[in-house]
Amino acid sequence: MSIKNSCILGAGTLGSRVALQSSISGFHVRVYDVQQKSLDFSLNTMQKILHQLHKSGQISKGQDLDILSRIKFTLDPLEAVEDADFINESVTEDVDIKKKVWKQFGEIAPEKTIFTTNTSYMLASMFAEDSGRPERFCAFHFHDVFYSRVVDIMPHPTTDPALIPILEDLGRKLNQVPVILKKENPGYIFNTMLMALIGAAGKLLTGEVASIEDIDKSWMVNFHMPMGPFGILDSIGLDTAWHVTHKMPDRASVAFAALLKTYIDQGKLGEKSGEGFYQYPNPRYKAQDFVK
Amino acid sequence: MSIKNSCILGAGTLGSRVALQSSISGFHVRVYDVQQKSLDFSLNTMQKILHQLHKSGQISKGQDLDILSRIKFTLDPLEAVEDADFINESVTEDVDIKKKVWKQFGEIAPEKTIFTTNTSYMLASMFAEDSGRPERFCAFHFHDVFYSRVVDIMPHPTTDPALIPILEDLGRKLNQVPVILKKENPGYIFNTMLMALIGAAGKLLTGEVASIEDIDKSWMVNFHMPMGPFGILDSIGLDTAWHVTHKMPDRASVAFAALLKTYIDQGKLGEKSGEGFYQYPNPRYKAQDFVK
Repeated sequence: MSIKNSCILGAGTLGSRVALQSSISGFHVRVYDVQQKSLDFSLNTMQKILHQLHKSGQISKGQDLDILSRIKFTLDPLEAVEDADFINESVTEDVDIKKKVWKQFGEIAPEKTIFTTNTSYMLASMFAEDSGRPERFCAFHFHDVFYSRVVDIMPHPTTDPALIPILEDLGRKLNQVPVILKKENPGYIFNTMLMALIGAAGKLLTGEVASIEDIDKSWMVNFHMPMGPFGILDSIGLDTAWHVTHKMPDRASVAFAALLKTYIDQGKLGEKSGEGFYQYPNPRYKAQDFVK
Repeated sequence: MSIKNSCILGAGTLGSRVALQSSISGFHVRVYDVQQKSLDFSLNTMQKILHQLHKSGQISKGQDLDILSRIKFTLDPLEAVEDADFINESVTEDVDIKKKVWKQFGEIAPEKTIFTTNTSYMLASMFAEDSGRPERFCAFHFHDVFYSRVVDIMPHPTTDPALIPILEDLGRKLNQVPVILKKENPGYIFNTMLMALIGAAGKLLTGEVASIEDIDKSWMVNFHMPMGPFGILDSIGLDTAWHVTHKMPDRASVAFAALLKTYIDQGKLGEKSGEGFYQYPNPRYKAQDFVK
C-alpha cells in the first residue's frame, strides 16, 4: 500500500517531531490534540527545528514554508483522521488515556488506516484491543527523530505480520533506521540496554566505588562519547529515570531509585530544571579540561 | 617523588603499549619477560604502533628511534628493576603466576619502587601481600593506552593513600585520564558498565527479542557509535567475554555464556579468528548501508 496521509495524535515534543519529519518526507500530515495550546506549542516546536535544519544546511530557505504547508493542526477528531493511511499516537503515557483515545479513533478511522503507537514505557497489547482492530495495530517507536534516527517496529501477539514490511519501508521514508522486535519487550531494544548501563553506573555510585565524574569520564574517554551515564541521565530527566527504576525489585535498582529520589525531592530533575547530577547550562562534563 | 625509571613486567600487548607510552612520555623503560620471543613480539608491536603514530602525525620522523632508544628489553630480573621508580605488571592473568612474580620482584626491587598491577580480571589484594610491600602496591589499570586513554587507580585495603596523587600525576604524564576507585571492584569502572550493556544485549538475543544486527543498529544509530555490543564483543574476543560471564549466576548470564560457548566451540572467537558474531575483515556492521 502507498502511504500519503499521516495522522499524528498528541502534539507533544515527540509527536511534533514525527509530524515534522513526515511532512519533510513528503506526506500530508494532520496533527491532533485536545487543547489549542498544545497545537500552538507544536507549531512553535516545528519552527525551531526547521530553523536548526536550515542553519545546518539540511533544508534550504523557503523550503520551511513548503514543509509547514503540508501540516494541518486540528482539534477535530474527524478532520484529523480523514483519509488517513497511517496514525502514530504520542498521547500522554497513561494507559486509561491511551485506551480512550484508541477506542475513539478506532471508531472513526477509515478502514485502510494503519494504527501505530509511539509509547515509550507501555506495550501496545495494553490498549490495541480498544481500537477494535488489534491486527492493524503495531508499536512504531521513535527516539528523537532527527539526532537519534532509530524507529522500533514492535508487533504485539495479534499484529498482522504483513504490517511489518510496510512499516519498515515507511520508517526508511521517514529517514529512520528501522529495527524489528520479534515480540513485545518493555523498553524496546535501545532503552533496555541504556537502562542496564545506567543501572550499573548507579550501582557504582551508590556502592561508593567511584564519583559521578570519574564514572562519566571512564565511559566518555573509553568510547570517545560526549556524555557519560550521569550526563545522559540529566538529559533524560531524573524523574523519568526514577519512573522506570523505582519499580525494579533488585537491590541495586532500589538503592539507585532512592538516590534519584533525593535529587528529585530537591527539585533537581536534570538539564530541564537547571540542575541534576551536574549544573546547567555549563555542566562540568562539557568543560574542555574535564577529560584531562 | 619524581618518576624517571619505569619497569614493565610482561611483554604482551598491553605491557608493550604501556612501555611504549612511558618512553614517549620521556621515561627510561625496561621491559621484562621470561621468554626472548615475547620480547621480540614486544619490539615488533611497538614498531607497528610507532608507524601508526607517525602516519597520523602524532610523532615526527626520527622521533621513533629516540623513543625506542629509551627502552631496554631484558630477560634478567635484576637488570629489569635496577633503579626502578615504578613497576607496572601485565603478566599472564593467573593468580599463581602473579603471586610468584610479585614475590620475586618484591625481594629484589629497590626500596623506592612503587608496585602496580595492570590486571583486568583480578584484584590487587589477591597478590599484593606476596610482594612483601602491600602498602606500596596499587592497581594501575590501562585500557589500550592510545585510543582508550583511561587509567584506573584502584587501591586495595592496605594501599598507602599517599600513592594515589602520585599515580594520578603519573597517569596524566602518560597521556591518560586517571579515574580513582574508592575501593576494590572487579571490572573497575568501565568494564562493569560495559559488561552490563553486553549482558542486556545478550539477553535480548537469547530471549529472541531481536537480531544481532538490529541490536547493534539500535546502539550505533542512537549514540552515533561505530560499533554495537556484538561488534564490541567480536573485538574483545568471545573467549574473553565467556571467561567473565560464565561465572555469573543470574539466568540471563547463564543463557548468554551458553550462547558464547556455541560460537567458541566452532572456533568463532571474534575478529582475531576471522569470525564471531560477524565475519572479518569486512563485518556487515562496517558496511555503508548497514544503518540505512
